Amino acid sequence: GKRLDLDDTRWISVGAGLRAAYTSVEDGAPSGDARSNDFDVQNMRLYFSGQLHENIKFTFNTDEIFSDGPVDVLDAIAQFEFSKGFNLWVGRMLTPADRIEMNGPFYGLTWNQYTQPLYPSDQGGAAGTYGRDDGITLWGAAGKFQYAIGAFDGVQGFGNHDDELLFAGRFAYNFLNMEDNPAYYTSSTYYGGLGNVLTLGLSFQSQSGATGSFAESGDFSGYTVDLLSETALDSGAVVTVEAEYKDFDADFTLATLPAGGGGCFCLFDGDSYFVTAAYLFAQETGVGKLQPYVRVVENSPTDAADSDLTEVGLNYVISGHNARLNFNYSSGDANITGYPGADVDSFSFGVQWQI
Amino acid sequence: GKRLDLDDTRWISVGAGLRAAYTSVEDGAPSGDARSNDFDVQNMRLYFSGQLHENIKFTFNTDEIFSDGPVDVLDAIAQFEFSKGFNLWVGRMLTPADRIEMNGPFYGLTWNQYTQPLYPSDQGGAAGTYGRDDGITLWGAAGKFQYAIGAFDGVQGFGNHDDELLFAGRFAYNFLNMEDNPAYYTSSTYYGGLGNVLTLGLSFQSQSGATGSFAESGDFSGYTVDLLSETALDSGAVVTVEAEYKDFDADFTLATLPAGGGGCFCLFDGDSYFVTAAYLFAQETGVGKLQPYVRVVENSPTDAADSDLTEVGLNYVISGHNARLNFNYSSGDANITGYPGADVDSFSFGVQWQI
Amino acid sequence: GKRLDLDDTRWISVGAGLRAAYTSVEDGAPSGDARSNDFDVQNMRLYFSGQLHENIKFTFNTDEIFSDGPVDVLDAIAQFEFSKGFNLWVGRMLTPADRIEMNGPFYGLTWNQYTQPLYPSDQGGAAGTYGRDDGITLWGAAGKFQYAIGAFDGVQGFGNHDDELLFAGRFAYNFLNMEDNPAYYTSSTYYGGLGNVLTLGLSFQSQSGATGSFAESGDFSGYTVDLLSETALDSGAVVTVEAEYKDFDADFTLATLPAGGGGCFCLFDGDSYFVTAAYLFAQETGVGKLQPYVRVVENSPTDAADSDLTEVGLNYVISGHNARLNFNYSSGDANITGYPGADVDSFSFGVQWQI
Repeated sequence: GKRLDLDDTRWISVGAGLRAAYTSVEDGAPSGDARSNDFDVQNMRLYFSGQLHENIKFTFNTDEIFSDGPVDVLDAIAQFEFSKGFNLWVGRMLTPADRIEMNGPFYGLTWNQYTQPLYPSDQGGAAGTYGRDDGITLWGAAGKFQYAIGAFDGVQGFGNHDDELLFAGRFAYNFLNMEDNPAYYTSSTYYGGLGNVLTLGLSFQSQSGATGSFAESGDFSGYTVDLLSETALDSGAVVTVEAEYKDFDADFTLATLPAGGGGCFCLFDGDSYFVTAAYLFAQETGVGKLQPYVRVVENSPTDAADSDLTEVGLNYVISGHNARLNFNYSSGDANITGYPGADVDSFSFGVQWQI
Repeated sequence: GKRLDLDDTRWISVGAGLRAAYTSVEDGAPSGDARSNDFDVQNMRLYFSGQLHENIKFTFNTDEIFSDGPVDVLDAIAQFEFSKGFNLWVGRMLTPADRIEMNGPFYGLTWNQYTQPLYPSDQGGAAGTYGRDDGITLWGAAGKFQYAIGAFDGVQGFGNHDDELLFAGRFAYNFLNMEDNPAYYTSSTYYGGLGNVLTLGLSFQSQSGATGSFAESGDFSGYTVDLLSETALDSGAVVTVEAEYKDFDADFTLATLPAGGGGCFCLFDGDSYFVTAAYLFAQETGVGKLQPYVRVVENSPTDAADSDLTEVGLNYVISGHNARLNFNYSSGDANITGYPGADVDSFSFGVQWQI
Repeated sequence: GKRLDLDDTRWISVGAGLRAAYTSVEDGAPSGDARSNDFDVQNMRLYFSGQLHENIKFTFNTDEIFSDGPVDVLDAIAQFEFSKGFNLWVGRMLTPADRIEMNGPFYGLTWNQYTQPLYPSDQGGAAGTYGRDDGITLWGAAGKFQYAIGAFDGVQGFGNHDDELLFAGRFAYNFLNMEDNPAYYTSSTYYGGLGNVLTLGLSFQSQSGATGSFAESGDFSGYTVDLLSETALDSGAVVTVEAEYKDFDADFTLATLPAGGGGCFCLFDGDSYFVTAAYLFAQETGVGKLQPYVRVVENSPTDAADSDLTEVGLNYVISGHNARLNFNYSSGDANITGYPGADVDSFSFGVQWQI
């Protein structure tokens, strides 16, 4: 982003981020017996932020939420930033969650991170969109410990008769070097720029009345443990290993609907994990560095069959998270719902820009 | 906003405004017997404006119109600005109206100004949104007299068979110091910055075919008298009194629907007033000044029962309209429809930033 | 736009464009026997672009797509720009097409260019919007020859069972001076600024399964020849002549629907042409120059009657495509569908700003 100073204290910053990809899925065409052929602008973000007063900032980001929709408000945050240890954000923001949610798509290690079930604020819009929701978050760091805890609207309507709030928290401990990101956000690789990193994170979310229909109300709670290890080798190469394990407890799911019909806000019940290992070559190839990776995901709902997905991919890193290309190949039946889909292979080519 | 010069004549300015609040309404949860709990980004505005030529400017503002919707065009104005006395705006802009509409939410004295029935351009979208509509406005000032008159699309469809235009005007006289706002916009407090202010405003709007259904067409006309008095005391404290009285004449209302069904664009018929009194303390408390206020609203439709609302609130003014916090408590049954709602109490905490 | 440098290589640019008009159509009111009266913000564009790396740029433009809708993504392009002769764009962008599509509304010669049937990416949204679609384009120039060829999603669903791509291309030869526009974009007048111009363009688009319904699938292919001649006279006046001829072959049209019902993505089948002649006076009148024009359009579907439209208009050119006013009068029954509409007269006053 470009920072524009108004005076000694006040500034505005303007930036943008773009992710576009071509994706082809086996048997993915409407006919069911041809590969799909899809170009898509997956994200087109405008980043506005600013400082109004020594302790007062704001962030306003937009994205094209849900493929080819209009420009939507992604983040809209009134920020009271008091110290490294204590800050208060109000507005629409990321609900504290697991690492791949705190990365967003732009700071992930792989192109297609979201093949596991996600927390409610990333479940189609009724409880927030793209991991964001309206609420309040306290966050900060004390030494190598980081925290973010918040209260949010969560699901409104459906089974939430008494307008109960969603509570969300994330706690992380940096065993080696400290990760360096804005606020409570994360990245799943620093391309070796921070040296050796080993961080363990724990997140949880819970809300009463968060699942089910107006007629039959149920609850939701879940937690995730995530781990990031990045090792800068003497050769200049970088080894990155990332893993998450999540366990969700939802009273109503897509496989266990409330009786009596009516719209259900249904979540995943069960557990899920993924592991990714990546290797960033030390030497440049052309204008960038190659970073091949493998990733394995397994989703295990309590009320349906397991599913899994294996990915192999290659990042071509021109300028960190600001300019990279990706090729990804996957095979399996796991997807974001947590329930088995078609067991197919797919590949994508992606382009990511940020400024 | 930050002004960016292209050359001696041309410039672009970029700014932003954010209002976020937590609101809790007695019995407001879906169950009807618990308080509601709602965080909301009420406004997230981007402000773009610029000058292309000595007499040619533009304004383009966006907001998230109607809670959690996409980013929408709020204002889009091609501006011919000839002199203090004569200017012509074309595009989407505020229809000349009463003071609280010309304030918008960011320049009001209280957080929740809109508890009275409003003119058609602030009635859900069929005749404009957020007080704006597509049309043309002539505006200017002569001495202490200010005027704005315009023609707009107003309601399209419904009972407006012959595509009649909406006519709107606002006239104000500044008895003491001149108010200082862009164009024909207003503020309901200057925090004493302009000294003593006493301004009387008169606005009207009318459109043939503006109410009713396609089968049964009716008209609309209305006027509002508004008064602002701000007195800067010797102590440095500031006393602000604001009042409006409006009288609307609508052939079809929510209580008097057209026969034969079909969609109705229905407005309020009757009168309504509010009075607000505020006191800004001279001394700072922490980084801001306290401004307690009381406000009383009464809506009296001709075809339904009266309703009223009493509010007590506190602004914490850090940097005028650019950084302030608000706590508001209200009790009563009056609301924006003009018809009685549930007789409940509610409170809100709000944060407002602008740059 | 204003260019903001981040360092020697990287920059962001911010700009805006606004077109607003009043239009009145004979018998155009809902009653059918009064003139319509419509103000409209036809376009409100924000222009963001930037360079991240020597060969890497991006463009992100928004518009209010389809009257009074939200702010939408217009263009979102990841740009690899290698040389004058070879460039690769990925994302959402103009599908290579005829000149009036490559102009967009801001760089046309006349206010209401789109009274002919258009390619699929400008047909209501199912195959792209406002001439844009998600895909990939190769473009460049070799001497006086310009090319742009691309592959796009085109229609998805409907009769496109196998997710076939849309292929599009545009080739132009500049016989006299070279036209000067970004990438493969065009303008239909340079107000004499480029001297004498004579350019012949040929565009085509085709997609299998691009017309019809899911039950009955058909194809689409079409081509357009366009010509622009601009002559700068010794007097300082400028004569501009523009013409297009297009021939579309669609298996299903609005007049030849697929059997069995179901939603149809129907296109025009037949041919169409327009010719425009304009004269820009050398001398200034006030702060601008007058440019009267006449335009004739004829649409000839194979499966319905012909229609035509005659326009006379006047541009008042204050600052080229950045500040101009327009008055346009038209009479006839031709319109963007290609099928005859009501035979009426209409007039519009328009204002166009860009920075």
